[in-house]
Amino acid sequence: MPAKAKDAISKQTAAKIEKLAESVLKTVKGGKNPFLDIPVRSLANVSFSEKKRLIELGNQKQKRYFFNVSMAKRFMQTFLVSEACKELIDAGKTTSIRDLYYITKHTIGDTKQNTFEDQDESDPIIEDLEVTVDALREELHLFADPKGAMVGPVTVVDSGDTIDLRRMGSGGWSVPSIVEENIVQFRKHEAKYILLIEKGAVWKRFNEDKFWQRDKCIIVHGGGQPPRGVRRLVQRMHKDLKLPVYVLVDNDPWGFYIYSVVKQGSINLAFESMRMAVPDARFVGLSSFDKDKYQIPNNVAIKMNDGDNTRAKQMLAYPWFKNARWQREIQEMVRSGQKFELEALSRRGISFITEEYLPKKLKDKDWLE
Amino acid sequence: MPAKAKDAISKQTAAKIEKLAESVLKTVKGGKNPFLDIPVRSLANVSFSEKKRLIELGNQKQKRYFFNVSMAKRFMQTFLVSEACKELIDAGKTTSIRDLYYITKHTIGDTKQNTFEDQDESDPIIEDLEVTVDALREELHLFADPKGAMVGPVTVVDSGDTIDLRRMGSGGWSVPSIVEENIVQFRKHEAKYILLIEKGAVWKRFNEDKFWQRDKCIIVHGGGQPPRGVRRLVQRMHKDLKLPVYVLVDNDPWGFYIYSVVKQGSINLAFESMRMAVPDARFVGLSSFDKDKYQIPNNVAIKMNDGDNTRAKQMLAYPWFKNARWQREIQEMVRSGQKFELEALSRRGISFITEEYLPKKLKDKDWLE
Repeated sequence: MPAKAKDAISKQTAAKIEKLAESVLKTVKGGKNPFLDIPVRSLANVSFSEKKRLIELGNQKQKRYFFNVSMAKRFMQTFLVSEACKELIDAGKTTSIRDLYYITKHTIGDTKQNTFEDQDESDPIIEDLEVTVDALREELHLFADPKGAMVGPVTVVDSGDTIDLRRMGSGGWSVPSIVEENIVQFRKHEAKYILLIEKGAVWKRFNEDKFWQRDKCIIVHGGGQPPRGVRRLVQRMHKDLKLPVYVLVDNDPWGFYIYSVVKQGSINLAFESMRMAVPDARFVGLSSFDKDKYQIPNNVAIKMNDGDNTRAKQMLAYPWFKNARWQREIQEMVRSGQKFELEALSRRGISFITEEYLPKKLKDKDWLE
Repeated sequence: MPAKAKDAISKQTAAKIEKLAESVLKTVKGGKNPFLDIPVRSLANVSFSEKKRLIELGNQKQKRYFFNVSMAKRFMQTFLVSEACKELIDAGKTTSIRDLYYITKHTIGDTKQNTFEDQDESDPIIEDLEVTVDALREELHLFADPKGAMVGPVTVVDSGDTIDLRRMGSGGWSVPSIVEENIVQFRKHEAKYILLIEKGAVWKRFNEDKFWQRDKCIIVHGGGQPPRGVRRLVQRMHKDLKLPVYVLVDNDPWGFYIYSVVKQGSINLAFESMRMAVPDARFVGLSSFDKDKYQIPNNVAIKMNDGDNTRAKQMLAYPWFKNARWQREIQEMVRSGQKFELEALSRRGISFITEEYLPKKLKDKDWLE
């Protein structure tokens, strides 16, 4: 198929896949057992870098051989997936990891054997390919389900369309899953910072109150745990537009976890932290001490359950929560046995969060890092 | 609090709430036990109207008295919720039903009694209020979590911002939860129909392939089961812009259910069908017969599980699925024991769904109604 004119990123990624294939081919021609050198993605090869302040993958690699009964199938699968990604890139198209599973699912020859039985088999192969050729899945032209919205004093270009995020009404711009430089570029902006909000409903409060206009900031939400597109976009704006990032989440272990993934990445996807994490991100609450500072009545507290307590105690041991303020923060949550949703602030008034809570947090520099 | 200048819909809704309060007050002044006349929302009062082709609420009502031990609390709750909604409307603000729960949660006097223990108590009260004053919750200024995106040859105005949905890049316009006439208006359009797609990932395929530009249609998805905002918007475009609606879902009982809710509403929210349902909506697949028509290989089929079979058999009995073609459709699904995701079409090529499948379906008028 004749390749479409490719952008720089797509050219680079296609070249990486070709190089991988060529190196294997060379081994075959040399009469050797072809193999792939794949970075190990297990917990043993993951660590928190104090210097970079993010969770990263170590240097351990494992060889996957073609002539090896236990490895041959995965070797073949890796090439099926890389071939499909190369075709996507050449065609200038993107697709979902679910779709990729269907695209690469064949019955092999006359056997009853399938290349993949289900998506649980193809997903890890995609991750293998990402680390092996050092390309995010978005660069391999694979997307996740879109989730999240954004507005603010910034103009973006998305797939050639110029979009003024100052004029997006109540809905906002739906953040796409692939936001690499070849798809999304930034134009004129007057923003002073980025506010990443856990919940869509709370984001709507900030949008309706035109907080972003008043306080010159970009507001974005990810509908709960932010999807890859939102995290990558926040990182890109942080770096390219030099904007600080503030994270606004519930006061519960899940909210703290969301913040920590935004800040230093996750253990499961350690190899992507470099492209996703924002080590300078600041936590602007809800803090376990805000119930007193902002007089949140006791009857809107939610009791911590066993799962919450276990999670909170695990967090106390994480290296990225080991500074004194975070220890105090998490211990207070455990001690009180209470958690609070952002919506609990509405007990003080529907716009309390946009008019008093957040302005005071920012003015007092009352955040955790 | 001085009321902001209100739009016509907000004025009307505020007046409905006032009228409710006044009628109760009058009863009190007349020395009688005040009550509310609340339409019954149980299954017994729900039926499928053959004429209107939608699921609707019957005329049964029940009286909720103030001076009645078992009813007093709910009577009080109904007024708390209606007062909060009235305040929202007066302030020109909207909020989530979660937030409303927090706003209306008080401890009563010196007792340890709360107005609401949890949201499970306030949500049904909101539904009571909706049916009692005959206003959608969106008209009461309450929103659901935003979900779904839309692009196409149409210009919309959202909260005063004019947005050209022909130039929304890969992300699209995030469909807001409240899309009543006072928030969202339609401007110039060249669309010939609306395509409602179950899945965000499939919608991305249609957007990337610029199907909407080529075929002059509006494409919208709801990230699975479409949220209220998407359903209401589709109904408004269907009525106001006189556009036919086509629904593209997975070939499984869940996909059929999504279609049926779009078409005739749901049993749980029967009182909203009039404002949400599109009885003329057409099902463009996946059909249980498409595996042969479009040569979808057997190895991408998914085996029906027990839950699927039970759901499918229930569907055979629903009055809205009783025509011969739907019976044949569901029976084939049960007979084959197979279901298919939309993504299974990608086995025939990544853009098979936009270039061959849907164009042929529409050209052959091969849809179910």
